[in-house]
Parts: sequence; structure tokens; C-alpha cells
Amino acid sequence: MTPQGALPAQVRVVEVGPRDGLQNEPAILPLMTKQLFVTRLAAAGLPVIEAGAFVRPDRVPQMADSDELFRRLGGVRGPVLTALVPNRRGLDRALRCGVRAVAVFTAASEAFALRNINMDIARSLEVFSQVVSEAHAAGCRARAYVSTAWWCPYSGRVPCETVVRVAASLRDIGCDEIALGDTIGAATPMEVTALIERLTRDLPVGLLAVHFHDTRGTALANVLAALTCGVATVDASAGGLGGCPFAPGASGNLATEDLLYMLHGMGIETGVDLDAVAAASRALAPALGHPMPSRYLQAGPPRAVQG
Amino acid sequence: MTPQGALPAQVRVVEVGPRDGLQNEPAILPLMTKQLFVTRLAAAGLPVIEAGAFVRPDRVPQMADSDELFRRLGGVRGPVLTALVPNRRGLDRALRCGVRAVAVFTAASEAFALRNINMDIARSLEVFSQVVSEAHAAGCRARAYVSTAWWCPYSGRVPCETVVRVAASLRDIGCDEIALGDTIGAATPMEVTALIERLTRDLPVGLLAVHFHDTRGTALANVLAALTCGVATVDASAGGLGGCPFAPGASGNLATEDLLYMLHGMGIETGVDLDAVAAASRALAPALGHPMPSRYLQAGPPRAVQG
Repeated sequence: MTPQGALPAQVRVVEVGPRDGLQNEPAILPLMTKQLFVTRLAAAGLPVIEAGAFVRPDRVPQMADSDELFRRLGGVRGPVLTALVPNRRGLDRALRCGVRAVAVFTAASEAFALRNINMDIARSLEVFSQVVSEAHAAGCRARAYVSTAWWCPYSGRVPCETVVRVAASLRDIGCDEIALGDTIGAATPMEVTALIERLTRDLPVGLLAVHFHDTRGTALANVLAALTCGVATVDASAGGLGGCPFAPGASGNLATEDLLYMLHGMGIETGVDLDAVAAASRALAPALGHPMPSRYLQAGPPRAVQG
Repeated sequence: MTPQGALPAQVRVVEVGPRDGLQNEPAILPLMTKQLFVTRLAAAGLPVIEAGAFVRPDRVPQMADSDELFRRLGGVRGPVLTALVPNRRGLDRALRCGVRAVAVFTAASEAFALRNINMDIARSLEVFSQVVSEAHAAGCRARAYVSTAWWCPYSGRVPCETVVRVAASLRDIGCDEIALGDTIGAATPMEVTALIERLTRDLPVGLLAVHFHDTRGTALANVLAALTCGVATVDASAGGLGGCPFAPGASGNLATEDLLYMLHGMGIETGVDLDAVAAASRALAPALGHPMPSRYLQAGPPRAVQG
């Protein structure tokens, strides 16, 4: 880790709740509920919102209405609205809906890639090479997720060098951003530092984002470790959407509210209104059927009370 | 923050669940349940366990049986068992039960001290001066809590210099350890670093411990910040006892399991068996009437599964 002087003055928060969060919720929300949620998050000042995925509706029913959602969101001003696309067919759908930024999803673990995207890593890179080229040709920015960047639920600890190879390949095919995912929320700060320090020997730190899950409570400590390495793009999910505080092994994303609370407390600017994000989460909560795991959402700000 | 090379190789975990945790639970547990809980925590290798408080039974019924509890725990080998004592009467009770280490509790905020211990800070220091002298004369170690070291629920942000004055006074009256408490779980890492760096201009870092609440999810990030300043004694509560994941504003202590998971993942030794602590928490949970907030306790270890 570097001295605190090296902490970034600003962090770009990538809101993944409407996609990565809702995709992992049991409830399938009405289109209007999602539209309102994304609109509220946009109004809160979030600079990037991953709003949907152009995947097979039979496999991921939570995202089946992404086409219509993006059409309706066309008028939303402010954030970049991104969509996950697994292949060229998904990209074509996204482009037809006016999407201007896409994301592809691979892994640093072969076992996870095979089970999660039904391709080995090499094949996913071939597919994404075409997707990224076409996206760029259409004027779209392209982000890549490297899931299981530290731990894989099937093969355990993932070696640094594997992540370096996958990340370098993603850079080579032209990805504009590489998000390192702690998919099962198992990483601890020294593992985060070790991987990022190794990656930044080959890649500019500005290419990297981090995507932590708070499964074991370490997400914010991992963010702190990543910040001290110079990473300044951090994913989070409003309310901690995608996890349930009582589900065994619930692997919710880091909650946007918890992230913003820490960053703002550290004097790091995000341009996001924390209270407005919390209000968006609270408005969504009744549709989920369970409480949201964000700690800040439950506690609220530390205001001085009348004793 | 200092470079990662400066992280302590070992951390002493002070288990506060049986006192600070149970004192803040609505349920009053049977003596036998508490005895078994402390015995299990001791067997897990925790080096220090705050097992009870010699306070007024009418004010704190959860601790009313501390005398009998400590008598029964007399045979427990391994950890130092500590007790909170508010004054000389409490100390006398503790000594009669064979207690060999005590803790006193004051604050860095006058408003909090007046409401919580019914004394202003100066008066608490007078009282504790006698308590610590007598404790030392009896061969007891004496720790002091400085609650509201960063934020006060009544007066808001607490100035660094106030904490420095209180901590220096506690050192002057002979306290062997000073635990800085983020009582309402509002601190963020730079505030932690700033206070500890300021304190260690006047006090040896080995005198300091940190006591974080995970109210807004920042506890482990704050621990990381404290470790990088050289602090090597960290308080935690088994299962996150003392907080409920669904209670509005629940201000549970940092969970021992979450702390151990992070420390062990960072290669920092504690001498504590994480799985044994989790088993102690699970065995206690049915008596509480609500789930425990520790994230690790819900998720378990990241074992590779058969896909």
C-alpha cells in the first residue's frame, strides 16, 4: 500500500444494482419499478449505471425486459447507462436500443468460466474481441469483468498470474476498463494489494476497476486497499442489492451507500448524493420481499441527536 | 498510513461479546448459557475475554450475575478474563470474585459521559485514578475505554485534541491500555489514521487498542487503517453480538469472526481458531431471539465446492 497522500481525490462509482443486483434477486420486478429505480439512481448523480443485460430471457428472466427498459431510459440525462452483453447477438440488441456502453463478462478461473458463461476463457476472449471491435465501431465504450479474480467457488484460490494473463488479453482486444471481481466475497486486503500491484506492472492503473462482494464483511477494507494502490473506479450495488442479510452464503455486492459513506468520510469526492441513493433503495425495497443488506441504509447518517 | 511492511505480524484480539455484546442485547441469558459461551470462546484461543461487568444490577440486568459467573469461570485456563468496573465498589466486587484484569469506561465527549456514566470526564478520571491504583495494588491489569473517540451521538464530531487530553490523563493515572471506541460506528479510515497518528506523538502505540462498531460497514476498513498505524490490539464481539442486522440504527460491535477472517487472510497471526469462535456464536444464537449480524458467520469459509 502507498501512503495516504496517494489516495485518489475522486472516485468514480459504477452502480451495478439494476443489473448485477437485480439479476441475483429471486423476485422479477415490473418494468416500471426498474425504470423508476434507474431514474432515481441517475438523479442521485451516479456517473455510470449498469441498467440491464442482453442475455437469454429463458436463462435470466430478471433481465428479459432490458430492451424495453433501455428504450424507456433513452431520455435519462446524466449517467452513462451500460448493459452486459455476452456475445454479438446481445450487442446487436443493445445497439438497437440505443445503448452507448457495454460490458462483457469472463473469469480468471476456467472452472467458473465454463459453468457461468459456458465457454472457456480463451473462447470468451475470441468472442469478446469481436464484440469489443463492433462496439467501438458503433461508438460504444466497452468494459470487461474478470470475475473470480481472487477466489473461485470451484477451484479455490486463483493465482495472480492467471489474472494478469486474462487482463492483458482484455487490454489487447481493446477493452476500455477491466473490473476485477471478488465474486464470492473472499478476498482480504493484502490479496487485493498484491494483485493490483502485480497488474499495474503491465497495465495502467486507470484501466482497472474493483468489484467487491461483502460476503464476509471485507468489501470496504478491500476498497481501501485498492484505493491505496491508486484504483479510482469502484463498483457497488444500491442497498447491497443481490444479497440478503439472512440467506446462507449470500454474496451481495458491496452496498453503494456503505461505499459512499466511507469515501465521503475520507474526503474523497464522488459527485453522488448518498441520501438520494438511500432513498432510491428504500423505494425499491418493498418489491424485493426481503430487507436490503446495506448497513448504512439501516443505520442512517450519524446525526447528533437531542439527548 | 504506513507502507504494508509495517503491518503488525500479530494482533491481539480482545473479545468483548460476553460483556459489551450481551449488555446490549434485549434478552437476559441464563448464567449457564453465558458460562458455556465464555468457556467456548476461551477454548477457541482468544487471549482476552471481557466476561462481565460489576455494575448496578437494577440498571444493567444483563450483567447482574457477573459475580457468580466469574466465580464459576475461575477454573478456565488460557485467556485473561476481564471485567468492567465503574468505581471502587465495582472493583471490590470484582476482586472478591477473583478477577485479575479490569476495565474502566469514560468518553471523549462530555455529553456522552454525563448521559452514559453519570459523571463528567474530569470526575471519571478522579474516580478511575483510585480504581486503577487499587487494581494495580491487587495485581490487576487495568484497561480504559475512551468511548466516542470520533463521533458522539449527542454532540457530533469529537475533536482529536479532546481525545488526546483524555487519553493522556488515562495514561497518567496508570492505565495499561487505552481502547479508542467508535461508539456509534461512524468513523471512516482517514479519521482513524488522523487520530492515531496524533495520539502516537504523545503515547506509545503499544498502549492503544481500537474498538469499532460496524454500524455503517466501515469497521474492518477502520481496523485496516489502525493496523497501518501500528495498532496491534483490536476489540471484537463474537457473532457481532450487541447488534441486530434488522434493528434501525443497530450499532453492533465488529464481529470477531469477520475480524479474524480478514486478519488471517492477511497473514496476521492471532492464535485464535476462527471456526471455533463461529461455533461458539452459533451455539449461543438460539438464546438471543434474532440472527447475529456477523457476515462470516452467515457465509462460512470460502471452500472450493464440487461444481
